[in-house]
Amino acid sequence: MYAEILTIGDELCRGEIVDTNSSSLAARLWDLDVSVRWMTSCRDDAGDIQDAMRAAAGRADLVVCSGGLGPTEDDLTVDVVCSLVGAEAAVDAHARARWEGRFGASASALQLRQLRVPAGSRVWENPVGAAPGFEVVLGGVPVFCLPGVPRELLGIYEAGLGGRLAELRDARGDAPRIARGIYRVFGRGESQISQACRGLVDGVPGASIHYQIKFPETLVKLVVRDPDQAAAAARLGLLDAELRARLGTALYGDGEETLPQRVARRLRERRFTIATAESCTGGMIGELLTDPPGASAYFQGGAVVYSNEEKQRQLGVSAQTLANEGAVSEACVREMASGARRAFSTDLALAASGIAGPDGGTADKPVGTVWLSLARAGQAGEPAEVVEVKQLSWPGPRDLVRRLAAWWALRLVDLALDERPLASGAGGAS
Amino acid sequence: MYAEILTIGDELCRGEIVDTNSSSLAARLWDLDVSVRWMTSCRDDAGDIQDAMRAAAGRADLVVCSGGLGPTEDDLTVDVVCSLVGAEAAVDAHARARWEGRFGASASALQLRQLRVPAGSRVWENPVGAAPGFEVVLGGVPVFCLPGVPRELLGIYEAGLGGRLAELRDARGDAPRIARGIYRVFGRGESQISQACRGLVDGVPGASIHYQIKFPETLVKLVVRDPDQAAAAARLGLLDAELRARLGTALYGDGEETLPQRVARRLRERRFTIATAESCTGGMIGELLTDPPGASAYFQGGAVVYSNEEKQRQLGVSAQTLANEGAVSEACVREMASGARRAFSTDLALAASGIAGPDGGTADKPVGTVWLSLARAGQAGEPAEVVEVKQLSWPGPRDLVRRLAAWWALRLVDLALDERPLASGAGGAS
Repeated sequence: MYAEILTIGDELCRGEIVDTNSSSLAARLWDLDVSVRWMTSCRDDAGDIQDAMRAAAGRADLVVCSGGLGPTEDDLTVDVVCSLVGAEAAVDAHARARWEGRFGASASALQLRQLRVPAGSRVWENPVGAAPGFEVVLGGVPVFCLPGVPRELLGIYEAGLGGRLAELRDARGDAPRIARGIYRVFGRGESQISQACRGLVDGVPGASIHYQIKFPETLVKLVVRDPDQAAAAARLGLLDAELRARLGTALYGDGEETLPQRVARRLRERRFTIATAESCTGGMIGELLTDPPGASAYFQGGAVVYSNEEKQRQLGVSAQTLANEGAVSEACVREMASGARRAFSTDLALAASGIAGPDGGTADKPVGTVWLSLARAGQAGEPAEVVEVKQLSWPGPRDLVRRLAAWWALRLVDLALDERPLASGAGGAS
Repeated sequence: MYAEILTIGDELCRGEIVDTNSSSLAARLWDLDVSVRWMTSCRDDAGDIQDAMRAAAGRADLVVCSGGLGPTEDDLTVDVVCSLVGAEAAVDAHARARWEGRFGASASALQLRQLRVPAGSRVWENPVGAAPGFEVVLGGVPVFCLPGVPRELLGIYEAGLGGRLAELRDARGDAPRIARGIYRVFGRGESQISQACRGLVDGVPGASIHYQIKFPETLVKLVVRDPDQAAAAARLGLLDAELRARLGTALYGDGEETLPQRVARRLRERRFTIATAESCTGGMIGELLTDPPGASAYFQGGAVVYSNEEKQRQLGVSAQTLANEGAVSEACVREMASGARRAFSTDLALAASGIAGPDGGTADKPVGTVWLSLARAGQAGEPAEVVEVKQLSWPGPRDLVRRLAAWWALRLVDLALDERPLASGAGGAS
């Protein structure tokens, strides 16, 4: 079963906005095991929209369109569809009642324009905005028209349209069942990862592997197709075990949770508190730790110490270390993490100091040199405090060096939480 | 003159990645006054790619393709184009020499695969990666094939392909000249802005106005077309003056420089130093200030004070203020900014404290309540230190509340730098 996605809008063709609706719909159709074969964008032009819809209905089994459902004279979708299917445009009574109930007034002619659908079409209510979506049949092919505003389109999708598309897929009876897995890998480049996965799916019926780079992580995706769901799942299980063995410790998680989200969750669950001491990252690690709601459970604050003076003043890094080894050194980040842990009275403290570039590199410490450290309470048999360090040497663009450093700092926390069944944090430095 | 953009790749049609190449190319073509009429994406399938290229060359005056130029067997573009134009595929000698010079080894058969072009095509060197772009003529229409990796595609574009497309446009002789302006607006919503601009271009020949929302700013774009460049520019100049009057102080800049970039530049030029005191923003303001290279000229560091205890400890916010008014209050951010300025010995200090949500709101202080402050040295006739404050009340999603707060904090600096011809900073608190 093949689908085509059509996104309508001058702003798309002028490159003013990035088309996220196409990829959102394509990903959802993929999850429904419907293959998208063509994705088209066209301008707010009645002739072009009509040609595009006709072409789509002529070559695909399912067409999903977005855009052109607003109230202005540039919004042409309803009228184009009406002329294609030979129907009149009519204001959807339910959409009108919702609009008037929400705004407590009669809708003007302009506002009514966006509440119209082709008479006889199946209406798909818009739970987020005004314009309803609708479904028609064109040349025997189901065509769905949805608003162009991403939150509205996805609102309609989640509210029931997804289920309708699954029905259409099931009605065909020829679609294989799919089992899939997503594996999140950090700390290895794409070529290393694909090397590690070489040959994994060879000769395995219906199995395929895909890579998606989302710097600084890579997602590995396994897909197994089989007419029988249980068979697909079983084959995926075998591949899953082999893939995990091959990826080793670079595999930090599976599913949708990113590394920063994972670390925040684990800190909250284990009741650990953490402070940050940031130089080159400028505040990025603190921002990542406070992205999720409820961060105050594990995060009290941090020190942004961009200059040598601030490293001394806020964290007690010694002038001697800065003079002898410099700010970008193992010794400096050890003192930064230890100083932060003491100053903030937390279980853990992270530090990052490096050369993000493009200037500031030397032969000894080129751009992309970053030292990271994690200070934690020592366990039985260890000193009172243990500081782990890691050095990065990745000469990339400034923004990517900073992002890689921030993620690696969080990965140090993640690995530390793995390594031992630490007693839940008591919120105080030992 | 109409262009079509074709982006090739299974990962696009599976919705695994968002197609940024289409919008990047469309925006650049728009800037060259070439209208993109269709944008198509297809899978890594030789038949589909061939059909898509033929259709594009049949209906557009210029075709730009990306994707399918890599080394794997899924990369089909070169072979499809060869069969369409009746040429053999040949390794580009220059690209091979660059590859072997860069890696110091002979290219393997797999690596050579990506260095191929259709014999007789015009080659467009890839300054960033391995695979060269190329240009052919199909049915009298110029067709450009570029790598799918965005940095490589844009590298080739900036290195000369853009000039080539401008040549092709000029050769047609029928394109109107275009004068355009970009106006960056912050602090007003889109509906207020479009209301302010109502009727601006009515009756002005060849003039149009577009809005692009890039939260938390909105870009207003004026375009004037005329066969004569000078006439277009003159008409734009009149509209420019009227638009600026209508937008007032919400207009912070024009051109490509964003607000954070502008503030960083102005601090550096005026030799001011600044410190940050961040609660709800978690480090985001520090990150924005350190995004540009050379930030150490104006930024020494900041305090991330997520808890009340940290506000007291790092900045000297009084326990009484926290008990009586709370952390999200005018009094608290005044003390935060003043305390930061003193602690860091800077000319300026920014503070932000608010409720980003989704939890934590109350009837008195709902989600989206944020207090911001800027502390600076007093001028003649003012006290030794002046602290300006601003309150936000915008109940949006957590990440957007934080971003709006960070930008508004920077806007306070921008406005302060406007208001008086301050002597350049001396780097010390008065």
